[in-house]
Amino acid sequence: MFMNFGEKSVAVREKSGGQIFTGLKSKLDSREDLSIFYTPGIAEPCRKIAKNPNLSRKLTLKKNSVAVVSDGSAVLGLGDIGAEASLPVMEGKAMLFRRFGGVDAYPIVLGTRDADEIVETVARIAPGFGGINLEDISAPKCFEIERRLTEILDIPVFHDDQHGTAMVVLAALKNALRVVGKNRETVRVVFSGAGAAGVAVARLLREWGVRDIEMVDSRGIVACARGDLTGEKREFCSRRAGELAEALAGADVFIGVSRAGVVSPEMVRSMNRDAIVFAMANPEPEILPDLARAAGAAVVATGRSDFPNQINNVLIFPGFFRGLLDAGVSKITIPMKITAAEALADLVEEPTAGEILPFALDERVAEAVSFSVKKFAFAKKTTRISVD
Amino acid sequence: MFMNFGEKSVAVREKSGGQIFTGLKSKLDSREDLSIFYTPGIAEPCRKIAKNPNLSRKLTLKKNSVAVVSDGSAVLGLGDIGAEASLPVMEGKAMLFRRFGGVDAYPIVLGTRDADEIVETVARIAPGFGGINLEDISAPKCFEIERRLTEILDIPVFHDDQHGTAMVVLAALKNALRVVGKNRETVRVVFSGAGAAGVAVARLLREWGVRDIEMVDSRGIVACARGDLTGEKREFCSRRAGELAEALAGADVFIGVSRAGVVSPEMVRSMNRDAIVFAMANPEPEILPDLARAAGAAVVATGRSDFPNQINNVLIFPGFFRGLLDAGVSKITIPMKITAAEALADLVEEPTAGEILPFALDERVAEAVSFSVKKFAFAKKTTRISVD
Repeated sequence: MFMNFGEKSVAVREKSGGQIFTGLKSKLDSREDLSIFYTPGIAEPCRKIAKNPNLSRKLTLKKNSVAVVSDGSAVLGLGDIGAEASLPVMEGKAMLFRRFGGVDAYPIVLGTRDADEIVETVARIAPGFGGINLEDISAPKCFEIERRLTEILDIPVFHDDQHGTAMVVLAALKNALRVVGKNRETVRVVFSGAGAAGVAVARLLREWGVRDIEMVDSRGIVACARGDLTGEKREFCSRRAGELAEALAGADVFIGVSRAGVVSPEMVRSMNRDAIVFAMANPEPEILPDLARAAGAAVVATGRSDFPNQINNVLIFPGFFRGLLDAGVSKITIPMKITAAEALADLVEEPTAGEILPFALDERVAEAVSFSVKKFAFAKKTTRISVD
Repeated sequence: MFMNFGEKSVAVREKSGGQIFTGLKSKLDSREDLSIFYTPGIAEPCRKIAKNPNLSRKLTLKKNSVAVVSDGSAVLGLGDIGAEASLPVMEGKAMLFRRFGGVDAYPIVLGTRDADEIVETVARIAPGFGGINLEDISAPKCFEIERRLTEILDIPVFHDDQHGTAMVVLAALKNALRVVGKNRETVRVVFSGAGAAGVAVARLLREWGVRDIEMVDSRGIVACARGDLTGEKREFCSRRAGELAEALAGADVFIGVSRAGVVSPEMVRSMNRDAIVFAMANPEPEILPDLARAAGAAVVATGRSDFPNQINNVLIFPGFFRGLLDAGVSKITIPMKITAAEALADLVEEPTAGEILPFALDERVAEAVSFSVKKFAFAKKTTRISVD
């Protein structure tokens, strides 16, 4: 029987329901086991944590657990499909957390789309988790939700659609620039898509040293004169107005986090020589790789696993959280994200047009990314100690 | 090295953190696996559930998942120790859910003690769960929280401290009455403790047919004339005032869910012949079994695993939720609880003073309890169909 991936994904679930389970680390077969893992033994770790709440990070699942939180308002390319319908994606994420990062992740889907209520709810369930991974929450509320949760909580909060994407794109761009021999400080970068991912990628690239960024959304170039700009878009607004085609003429890098087919071969031909094209719309990219290459692009990447150069968040989030949890990081910083992204890029010793990133299943990835976080956190601690 | 259970419970956690983990049901080793369990395949179950949200009960972890929710306000005998410190108990509960019921249970501990906020928060995270097990939430707010959540949600809500305890006590009492040859409709039952467990046990016994119930709390007999009674205590108030000793004189059954040592041998001697003593205070019972038996009690039970006749909720909640999830029950009813409790009792074919309940590790227990729930739910459906 021939089935496509979607049909297989449904079939396996019809058989066994969800794809993650909660398992036991120890056997529970004797009266003694019960006395250790339940009453009366269980009272002792409770007493210890009651005296020193920080011990919960050592003696409980908080040590290694991440909530994968969504309100189902911006799921994949499917849009606002609601909490229940987002569950398969959150389970898939939890699977990747476990498989590549050894992290115990659990899906929490919320029956509210209100930013205040989401912040409130996540803050209230946070005591049992070592980290929060926000997922598929629509822009612009996702920016506020993440900012407020980061302020309130003493565990790392990470909106993967923003920062996971931004970090993988940074790694991909670093190596693509090496391939074409161009410099981050002089390239002209054009974005199609100014939602959560677009804004986050632009922000991280700017912090990394990219100076010339122009953004285009569904209404054309994000021009400062437009009356409809959110604060996030305003950060990157242009003095000129126009369409995507005008923005791309002469550009060095195209970063697409928008919709299928918005880039034509003509537009790629109008770009600077040795153009870099990251067409990451899912599942159909802004332009198909073959067309982009035929139109002269030197390096082409997409979000798909069936084309070369897959720009996939799974290269970041499992290892990044592994490092955050192991190092006891309470706030994620921009230098930490840049360090981890560069560590990912550096796994490819000699980048080529056909290989700018490691493969998603490369076992070295999570190790390198988590190690970079731990090294970074340790260096900061040492610095602080020597300065104080 | 000799260690007691509490020290062992801490030692194992110092080594490995929490005692549950999230595992994968399928391998995730190839490009194809990624395409099925993550993008692009994952979009298909999402689309199906978006069209029909009920499919989330079939295609996701909602099918088999229970949130073990606590605010840490009434943990074991430790009292209000807070969310983080309650985590080991919630993990222990999740272990028992998995081990005996095959249920995927996950601890959710809340950084709020406010009843409205607890209701709100649990309602918002409910879309990802197939059931809610409330745990160690203090009385009287636990009554309101459970009632409101049961009204709002379309998944079963169960406060184990109330109903798990009530169901196991009912089972134990059913068999203890068989041992002494007394009748539920004529025995006089005295409670020490009128908190969540005491009230819930009294309510279920009343529904089962026990008519003569007197409750005693830390201020003495729950007399209707007292000005400090909650609505729940008022349901069981007495015309007379007095101390526990006065209540126990001539009683047939003592049910203790209170504090260590409140019952003296003299009080047991003052009870009716063939007295039944359930001294369930944890970890130290209201009276030690040896003393109670020496004072003439015919059947003695406690909450401890190191004495005979352990009255332990683990005999109920794993199998009960197994049945609720399998049968797709959305509201728990009183007859359903009584049916399951009687199924538990009936596993002991010939109850004796030394064996009124099955042992906690008896593999037949969860099966019998879950089967009773499924049979009950099925019978109700059939009845409804034939009546309509």
